[in-house]
Amino acid sequence: MLKELKEQVYEANMELPKRGLVTYTWGNVSGLDAERGLFVIKPSGVDYEVLKPEDLVVLDLEGNVVEGKYRPSSDTPTHLELYKAFPEIGGIVHTHSPWATSWAQAGRAIPCYGTTHADYYYGEIPCARSLTAAEISRDYEMNTGLVIIETFRKKNPVYVPGVLCKNHGPFTWGKDAAEAVHNAVVLEEVAKMAYQAEMLNHQIMPAPQVLMDKHFMRKHGENAYYGQK
Amino acid sequence: MLKELKEQVYEANMELPKRGLVTYTWGNVSGLDAERGLFVIKPSGVDYEVLKPEDLVVLDLEGNVVEGKYRPSSDTPTHLELYKAFPEIGGIVHTHSPWATSWAQAGRAIPCYGTTHADYYYGEIPCARSLTAAEISRDYEMNTGLVIIETFRKKNPVYVPGVLCKNHGPFTWGKDAAEAVHNAVVLEEVAKMAYQAEMLNHQIMPAPQVLMDKHFMRKHGENAYYGQK
Amino acid sequence: MLKELKEQVYEANMELPKRGLVTYTWGNVSGLDAERGLFVIKPSGVDYEVLKPEDLVVLDLEGNVVEGKYRPSSDTPTHLELYKAFPEIGGIVHTHSPWATSWAQAGRAIPCYGTTHADYYYGEIPCARSLTAAEISRDYEMNTGLVIIETFRKKNPVYVPGVLCKNHGPFTWGKDAAEAVHNAVVLEEVAKMAYQAEMLNHQIMPAPQVLMDKHFMRKHGENAYYGQK
Amino acid sequence: MLKELKEQVYEANMELPKRGLVTYTWGNVSGLDAERGLFVIKPSGVDYEVLKPEDLVVLDLEGNVVEGKYRPSSDTPTHLELYKAFPEIGGIVHTHSPWATSWAQAGRAIPCYGTTHADYYYGEIPCARSLTAAEISRDYEMNTGLVIIETFRKKNPVYVPGVLCKNHGPFTWGKDAAEAVHNAVVLEEVAKMAYQAEMLNHQIMPAPQVLMDKHFMRKHGENAYYGQK
Repeated sequence: MLKELKEQVYEANMELPKRGLVTYTWGNVSGLDAERGLFVIKPSGVDYEVLKPEDLVVLDLEGNVVEGKYRPSSDTPTHLELYKAFPEIGGIVHTHSPWATSWAQAGRAIPCYGTTHADYYYGEIPCARSLTAAEISRDYEMNTGLVIIETFRKKNPVYVPGVLCKNHGPFTWGKDAAEAVHNAVVLEEVAKMAYQAEMLNHQIMPAPQVLMDKHFMRKHGENAYYGQK
Repeated sequence: MLKELKEQVYEANMELPKRGLVTYTWGNVSGLDAERGLFVIKPSGVDYEVLKPEDLVVLDLEGNVVEGKYRPSSDTPTHLELYKAFPEIGGIVHTHSPWATSWAQAGRAIPCYGTTHADYYYGEIPCARSLTAAEISRDYEMNTGLVIIETFRKKNPVYVPGVLCKNHGPFTWGKDAAEAVHNAVVLEEVAKMAYQAEMLNHQIMPAPQVLMDKHFMRKHGENAYYGQK
Repeated sequence: MLKELKEQVYEANMELPKRGLVTYTWGNVSGLDAERGLFVIKPSGVDYEVLKPEDLVVLDLEGNVVEGKYRPSSDTPTHLELYKAFPEIGGIVHTHSPWATSWAQAGRAIPCYGTTHADYYYGEIPCARSLTAAEISRDYEMNTGLVIIETFRKKNPVYVPGVLCKNHGPFTWGKDAAEAVHNAVVLEEVAKMAYQAEMLNHQIMPAPQVLMDKHFMRKHGENAYYGQK
Repeated sequence: MLKELKEQVYEANMELPKRGLVTYTWGNVSGLDAERGLFVIKPSGVDYEVLKPEDLVVLDLEGNVVEGKYRPSSDTPTHLELYKAFPEIGGIVHTHSPWATSWAQAGRAIPCYGTTHADYYYGEIPCARSLTAAEISRDYEMNTGLVIIETFRKKNPVYVPGVLCKNHGPFTWGKDAAEAVHNAVVLEEVAKMAYQAEMLNHQIMPAPQVLMDKHFMRKHGENAYYGQK
């Protein structure tokens, strides 16, 4: 079932340790088959060294397990809410990657200080508010998704393909699982360089708006001219 | 003698250089056979590149060498005190891993700033007090253990499976040698991210208590639902 | 066409990921055949893992593609301006290497704090001014080159073989593509150590002029005595 | 000639890139045959990837090249002065390792903040004074050695086997080339952790004297009990 999608989501999961974004099992990737309304996700707590494509779990968009011998990632309800709220996305990643998680622990959005950031994220990468005690005590993972969605009320998730969950870590997404991982790698690099830039200049300001516009649009705008497309 | 335990403790020792936690011989792991009252520990100053399972030293809980051609780790008396005081634990690790050691040198407990920390350590990771001149001059390694135990008078060593020894470095533990190493890796990641989060926010506060409770309990509580158990 | 130069520029490009200077496709190297007035550059957005020497694009110094099935790097107009303005150089590198980019994002020149810097760069490594809105909106990449050239009005590009573009990242150069990459690696090391030195000493001053003179000249002066030449 | 010593010094040189202490050719190791009054050193500017034991240069203690097809390291006069002044040492290392060099650029001695430091260096690792213009302009490398020796007028080079040269980088030494490299690796780790500890605690104090005594002496004192000796 969904053999090709499982293969893609498996490859995307395996990129996480390869790119240094996860320690042990601290991360998960899912991918969506929008037509069938099904998504594939890493099983909970299974080591990357032993993970196989057929271990992935298939769920429908009501959260029912459709196939899989393992329990899905404990973060599955967060993925589910995001797929339902952001119809443009087809892949989601969660990690505890160190630089992004440090910003999340600091409770701060990452300002756009340069073109590396602007090439992928249009404007600051937001930090979602803390969940309330009630939101934590019941349906915690679903509420994590709902608070992310709340953060994007006035933001386009295609233009800003990631978020920091306060005191927790980042979620990123994309048109498919591979792009979601790509955006997770970018976020980690951007988080590191923003930290270092702040240490070097206590009066630092975000990059000029015109520069951000230029870089985002030369890769993602209608008249994009980066790459071979 | 204790062939299987030696193999486990050997594997746990070899994880330390593999995971980047030790330079040269700056670390050691031990594992306990609680039933027989014996523990197995790395020999002192032997390079990881040449270490073999049969080089490990077997001691009883009075500190007598029961088997082994080498002298045991110079930190053996610390391990011994911890096994006697904390009956729930079956493995102990000592390293000079850089991030945890930096906190130890700063003489500071690591506050819980996020879920990565809360998934493994319930509340702050304490920094033990300095030893007195008398405690250092005689039975230094035993007293290191006793000061750790003093630090845990009002703490549960199962809920907080590690400690920083001031101006020295970390000790971590677990139900066996492998889990103790796992907790040493977690500590290093947590120490790094807490440092970076503090640099990003000078008014940083620990994560909300409800979030810490949620994360620790979803992995370790009675109704844990993380992983495949 | 230009087979040997393509091979050299290909090798220089491949050094970037090997030396940890690029993530994904965030970098490019070009090399000049000054006699024929042609230069060779990486194609835009092509992954380093699949890049082959024959994929490189050949251009003349008016920016016309002379050979190549791919579109050249989007930064080609910047390279072009530099080749025209700095006749001594034969290779150019652009990266988003993290330490140099952090300084660029902070909008700061890198002071010369030691001999590692002085061995390759004579005096501070400048940070070019921001481009104006007009410079960004039209011919952005060409104007990036022109602003670099403006920065070097009173500087010798052979003595200072690199620059930081504000809110963007570094460009470096050299007598050929290999030397340009060498200077990119040096810049990254120097940027890291300057950052760390500043954190350790808030009253830090640049290295004494006599020391800078000595080190630069013992490698690059008329009476150079470093190495085997 | 001196085949075994060349082999040892070659192996020690090759440890530098392997341990991450050198970029390109930024380092050199020498080893002494005290009986014959000869020492062996890396040739100047030769890449580690192509270095062979037979490329090493043999000199006498007046600085004459006794054997070798290459020019010796440009830092040879520094090594020579140290061998003459410190008769207890048999190996010397110079690198631009990033953490130690950052302290050197900051012009600061590294305080002893913990046992990792105290296990190898007794008390702070000093930073030598700047050379005067006269000392730089003539016999620079010899004067670098003389200023190091001046720094050790009241220090025992066996107890403190290394130094930072201001705005330059570290020299370390030991009973032979291998031990000198070992002390260079230790210095880099210690420099990193001291930096991080200072960032975590702006009121940080050196480790208690009794703890430093204990750790240095349990490895190096008359009644040393660390390791298998």
